[in-house]
Amino acid sequence: MARRSKIYEGKAKDLFAGPEPETLIQYFKDDAACRTPEKTGTINGKGVLNNLISEHLMGLLHEIGIPTHLIRRINMREQLVRQVETIPVRVIVRNISAGSLVSRLGIPEGTLLPRSIVEYCYKSEELGCPVISEEHITAFGWASPQDIDDFLAMALRINDYLGGLFRGIGIKLVDLNLEFGRIYDENGEMRIVLIDEISPDSCRLWDIKDGRKLDLDRFRQDLGGMEEAYQEVARRLGVLPEGGVKELSL
Amino acid sequence: MARRSKIYEGKAKDLFAGPEPETLIQYFKDDAACRTPEKTGTINGKGVLNNLISEHLMGLLHEIGIPTHLIRRINMREQLVRQVETIPVRVIVRNISAGSLVSRLGIPEGTLLPRSIVEYCYKSEELGCPVISEEHITAFGWASPQDIDDFLAMALRINDYLGGLFRGIGIKLVDLNLEFGRIYDENGEMRIVLIDEISPDSCRLWDIKDGRKLDLDRFRQDLGGMEEAYQEVARRLGVLPEGGVKELSL
Ligand SMILES: Nc1ncnc2c1ncn2[C@@H]1O[C@H](COP(=O)(O)OP(=O)(O)OP(=O)(O)O)[C@@H](O)[C@H]1O
Ligand SMILES: Nc1ncnc2c1ncn2[C@@H]1O[C@H](COP(=O)(O)OP(=O)(O)OP(=O)(O)O)[C@@H](O)[C@H]1O
Ligand SMILES: [Mg+2]
Ligand SMILES: [Mg+2]
Repeated sequence: MARRSKIYEGKAKDLFAGPEPETLIQYFKDDAACRTPEKTGTINGKGVLNNLISEHLMGLLHEIGIPTHLIRRINMREQLVRQVETIPVRVIVRNISAGSLVSRLGIPEGTLLPRSIVEYCYKSEELGCPVISEEHITAFGWASPQDIDDFLAMALRINDYLGGLFRGIGIKLVDLNLEFGRIYDENGEMRIVLIDEISPDSCRLWDIKDGRKLDLDRFRQDLGGMEEAYQEVARRLGVLPEGGVKELSL
Repeated sequence: MARRSKIYEGKAKDLFAGPEPETLIQYFKDDAACRTPEKTGTINGKGVLNNLISEHLMGLLHEIGIPTHLIRRINMREQLVRQVETIPVRVIVRNISAGSLVSRLGIPEGTLLPRSIVEYCYKSEELGCPVISEEHITAFGWASPQDIDDFLAMALRINDYLGGLFRGIGIKLVDLNLEFGRIYDENGEMRIVLIDEISPDSCRLWDIKDGRKLDLDRFRQDLGGMEEAYQEVARRLGVLPEGGVKELSL
């Protein structure tokens, strides 16, 4: 096979040119990184598990009518996706206080929010992903009011559906971090679609029974047991093969 | 205890005056009934299981901000609810074709619908719950356009959340049948709330793996195994006590 051209080297994934025009390959790495505190490391098998988890969740969202970039999973580390025109905004939906809601606004961790709260961040690693409002998004032309309507409605539906899904397997969906992009059909009609990944890297997931964190916060907070946490999420979602983790050759 | 006054004798539940003003007691019976084909019977333990299931689901919906009539479960057959001003409309949300979508519109059973479809029926047993549109609802004053906006938005959120919840426990939410009512606070402010029950009497639930029906269709279609189906739903939702069904003294 010809050497593929790497288009982007991210913290958790690399992007390669796909086999067809307007496709990309997302390669899921074991690398973990966070900003506060600033550190990097690896979680053995994370890439494989996030690939399987994200494939599963995006497939279910597709079934309920949420358009996503996913075409199909290629192998244990890679998926083929539609290349989009990216929107430099992260859409965060929060159900329970954690992370920056604690550190920035002083809401005690674990507080059930009066209702789901949507936050936007400007997707710039250099600037530390600063919180922005719809004002900034429209003024700087990052997305139109119609785009915002579209991805906001999708984000709330995704939060409801995944909130139910995780609740069904004994997990609280504390918050989730989404990215969207634009695709155009043959007639030039534009549609907003969900991109990137949905995984314990992008969601906070707490066990209902004992509150155990099953997400990247274990790494951020040096709690250990990262591998087990990601495996536990995959197992409960039913995406680990019968033979268990060994079959995955993590 | 003084003899309670029965306010309504339904097919699946009886309503009694509650201990406080503007409260009711819903008593869940084992009686089963359907219109097409017209028949009645009993499903042993159904009342207890529906009481537990509906308490659980309404509790979760409350957590995501859907107001419901449920105050609390009183015992194995009864729950205390807020008495509402009823709206004589059933709101049905469909994800997969079944029931009257097959018989009335000829959509083959099991067809995944292009998107979730909302139907309204006029809640009149004598007239056989005829399908109606928003036109009828507003023209006859059964609900205002604002009421419809409110219960439609809630119905879609409930469908997304419960679709995820059931998917998490290996069950497809084929369709669900909701009722809403109006409550007024001290200042006379009106709010639409979810009433009645959410259970295998009011939802179609199919096992993901083998398509087995886990709802009242087993009774409608003489499939047998009704008790087991209702118990299976309760078990997967985690509302059967550890000791299993025996502890419930069905
Ligand atoms: N379908 C797509 N088309 C174009 N770009 C995409 C698509 N899906 C995801 N991306 C981009 O690919 C990158 C994936 O890399 P990665 O997840 O490692 O992100 P990052 O931004 O470097 O860091 P992090 O997500 O950890 O903050 C992201 O920048 C994301 O916006
Ligand atoms: N909070 C409430 N306040 C007032 N009425 C209520 C409330 N909750 C439910 N109800 C009504 O109580 C009745 C419950 O009885 P049941 O479920 O047996 O209904 P049904 O209409 O007789 O028949 P079916 O639901 O089987 O078609 C319904 O008519 C429902 O609208
Ligand atoms: Mg990323
Ligand atoms: Mg009823």
